[in-house]
Amino acid sequence: MRIAVLGGDGYCGWATALYLSSKGHSVAIVDNFMRRQWDHEIGAQSLTPIRPLSERLKVWQELTGNTIEMYVGDVTDYDFLSSTVKAFEPDAVVHFAEQRSAPYSMIDRKHASFTQLNNVVGTLNLLFAIRELRPDCHLVKLGTMGEYGTPNIDIEEGYITIEHNGRKDVLPYPKQPGSFYHLSKVHDSHNIMFACKIWGLRATDLNQGIVYGTLTDEVALDDALVNRFDYDEVFGTVLNRFCVEAAIGHPLTVYGKGGQTRGFLDIRDTVRCIELACNQPAARGECRIFNQFTEQFSILEIAQLVQKAAKKMRLKVEIEYLPDPRVEAEEHYYNAKHSKLIDLGLKPHWLSDSLLDSLMNIAVKYRDRIDRSLILPQVNWRNASNDRRSQSASLVGAASGHAQMGKIELTEKPAKRARTAVRGSKRQ
Amino acid sequence: MRIAVLGGDGYCGWATALYLSSKGHSVAIVDNFMRRQWDHEIGAQSLTPIRPLSERLKVWQELTGNTIEMYVGDVTDYDFLSSTVKAFEPDAVVHFAEQRSAPYSMIDRKHASFTQLNNVVGTLNLLFAIRELRPDCHLVKLGTMGEYGTPNIDIEEGYITIEHNGRKDVLPYPKQPGSFYHLSKVHDSHNIMFACKIWGLRATDLNQGIVYGTLTDEVALDDALVNRFDYDEVFGTVLNRFCVEAAIGHPLTVYGKGGQTRGFLDIRDTVRCIELACNQPAARGECRIFNQFTEQFSILEIAQLVQKAAKKMRLKVEIEYLPDPRVEAEEHYYNAKHSKLIDLGLKPHWLSDSLLDSLMNIAVKYRDRIDRSLILPQVNWRNASNDRRSQSASLVGAASGHAQMGKIELTEKPAKRARTAVRGSKRQ
Repeated sequence: MRIAVLGGDGYCGWATALYLSSKGHSVAIVDNFMRRQWDHEIGAQSLTPIRPLSERLKVWQELTGNTIEMYVGDVTDYDFLSSTVKAFEPDAVVHFAEQRSAPYSMIDRKHASFTQLNNVVGTLNLLFAIRELRPDCHLVKLGTMGEYGTPNIDIEEGYITIEHNGRKDVLPYPKQPGSFYHLSKVHDSHNIMFACKIWGLRATDLNQGIVYGTLTDEVALDDALVNRFDYDEVFGTVLNRFCVEAAIGHPLTVYGKGGQTRGFLDIRDTVRCIELACNQPAARGECRIFNQFTEQFSILEIAQLVQKAAKKMRLKVEIEYLPDPRVEAEEHYYNAKHSKLIDLGLKPHWLSDSLLDSLMNIAVKYRDRIDRSLILPQVNWRNASNDRRSQSASLVGAASGHAQMGKIELTEKPAKRARTAVRGSKRQ
Repeated sequence: MRIAVLGGDGYCGWATALYLSSKGHSVAIVDNFMRRQWDHEIGAQSLTPIRPLSERLKVWQELTGNTIEMYVGDVTDYDFLSSTVKAFEPDAVVHFAEQRSAPYSMIDRKHASFTQLNNVVGTLNLLFAIRELRPDCHLVKLGTMGEYGTPNIDIEEGYITIEHNGRKDVLPYPKQPGSFYHLSKVHDSHNIMFACKIWGLRATDLNQGIVYGTLTDEVALDDALVNRFDYDEVFGTVLNRFCVEAAIGHPLTVYGKGGQTRGFLDIRDTVRCIELACNQPAARGECRIFNQFTEQFSILEIAQLVQKAAKKMRLKVEIEYLPDPRVEAEEHYYNAKHSKLIDLGLKPHWLSDSLLDSLMNIAVKYRDRIDRSLILPQVNWRNASNDRRSQSASLVGAASGHAQMGKIELTEKPAKRARTAVRGSKRQ
């Protein structure tokens, strides 16, 4: 199958592109490297030293003989996107090419507006490109479990049967997203559902949970293929952040009471879910919605699991409760269904101790690249504007006393990091 | 109360601004005249000869002694919007400043994208401006009944209590909008709800039905204050279009079976609803949703009512069933609640014969300004791209044989229209 992976240089996209390529699919990566640019903007970088895409792809070809095509451009540029679709003629398009950080979208008005614009226009362009050029092509779109929020009833997979005043209908599940980013995904979902209805497109909207881990079989082949590992307060996901904190003896930073419960999945399940969706596409006119996660945990449970795993590695870690920078329920009912991908054949990896060890090992391995100043939350949902750069010093200074050091380290590190990056030794 | 009316040069906005001014409120109109620009783009114009805003406001002041301030600019330009909010210091902002035509949004990708961008960014800007500059200011936002679509259960006002697997919650009512325009309103609604939650803003989201009529007491004071009357296939609403068709003996163009049922209201009720919402604002943190319409009719019922009214004026009119250019249910259950504005004090005007007569009178009065080539639908939901200008000739030609004439008339008319516009005679 010919599969285009939009955003294939990013965290989930890269692992997915390699996985699909290893399974014999013809893969193209479409990316504009904006994710790397955002790192520069917020003064952060992946814990793992990731290589430029061109280098990654060369190594992949040398190791496996598989070629992955590369199209460099912005999906919000329709000329670029349509010419790419014309040239590559995909059977499926996996769409990761969005701004995917909630805190980034909450920095200020420009970031909120940019996030919604970027995500909504990119997806609209894709819908029109498929309609005009490849109407039979299957859109596999990454949404988020965060679209649902935390309702006091069970969360179904995209649709819910509602009985009301003696009548009944199956309707889109009500959405209560918790950031301008999550809102952008809700906007996308509505646009996609409509396009399927009016044009008979086929789409699978994957409401993904929080992904953890960096290692897939493919990524593990060579250090040059290493995947991103984000731990900073803007792009880092909670489990990664906790592991990094544990690795440097920083208290695990639980926001609020920690009763916030979310769906989680291993990145090895992400890539498998994508393949399952591609191999068994939605019907024409169908907008299928799957909840893509394998287990649900509260944030406090995650912190306790990391604490336990750290203890096995003789790392002593405390849990610290910070005022929640987000506006969200800190304790709530949560029961989200997630059986449809299992029905298609997913065999989940569980967040067991071994996984934590593996995550912890990555954090410890790259410990010297950790920038402590990036850990504490600096984006508060309640503010109209958050000045990340100037808040950085005071906030981090107050919490850990390492503010200036963190800043100096940051300015002094690039040379060393560059050396690490070109060393290129085999993993493990 | 200081009330800013964004989009106050448009159809609902103009009538609202005058009404609020007449009730003693300090009113400012914020507009960039884009609505007038769209008329030029699609080659249409209001049946009634509307004056430039500056002239309208001068006449209003001469007649009533009331000054309405005018701020000219685009709400998607934050510098403009924020400086306007700073300067005017509104207690309430009534937000009509959006692209409001479903067919316009369905012309092609650029129009779809523009509509969502324009509407979403404008509303986001407004939310941020209120948060930053006037956090106690009440946002009164115009949404549409079209956000709900046509579910097979009763439509509630914004929220629905759902019992599911033995648990219960009050959740946002599921949305199934029917065009990229309607989708933009759904996006807005989600953004507004979120802003109220995180920032404690106060908002009233008015899901308005299809508005009919041009005359309010204020507009009727002088011909120079005349309101828009759109009958073209892009911006014309169905009742206006039927009246124009009846006035020139054109068959009433019912799309599909005509079983499409919608909520309707008189423009005199629109302006009253806005005032009711302003006078009794939402609480801090509350996102109130009202369904703003007074009666529901199927399109065929509307056609039959117009036919009946036309008959009284000795106009014989046929009903013609066209293939539905939209993708929508042509027959469906429809029962939408609309009691909240009644509870606040709305006394509805009913779509009685007299109203139809009054609408019909306007259509007949300005009969020589009717351009037949603008009546038939040229934008088909099923197409990725609709070339309105080049389709115009063939479509209209096939249907009425007046395509070229219509075009020539259009190019020859401006001088005559200008003369009509400056005549300035009193109404009636």
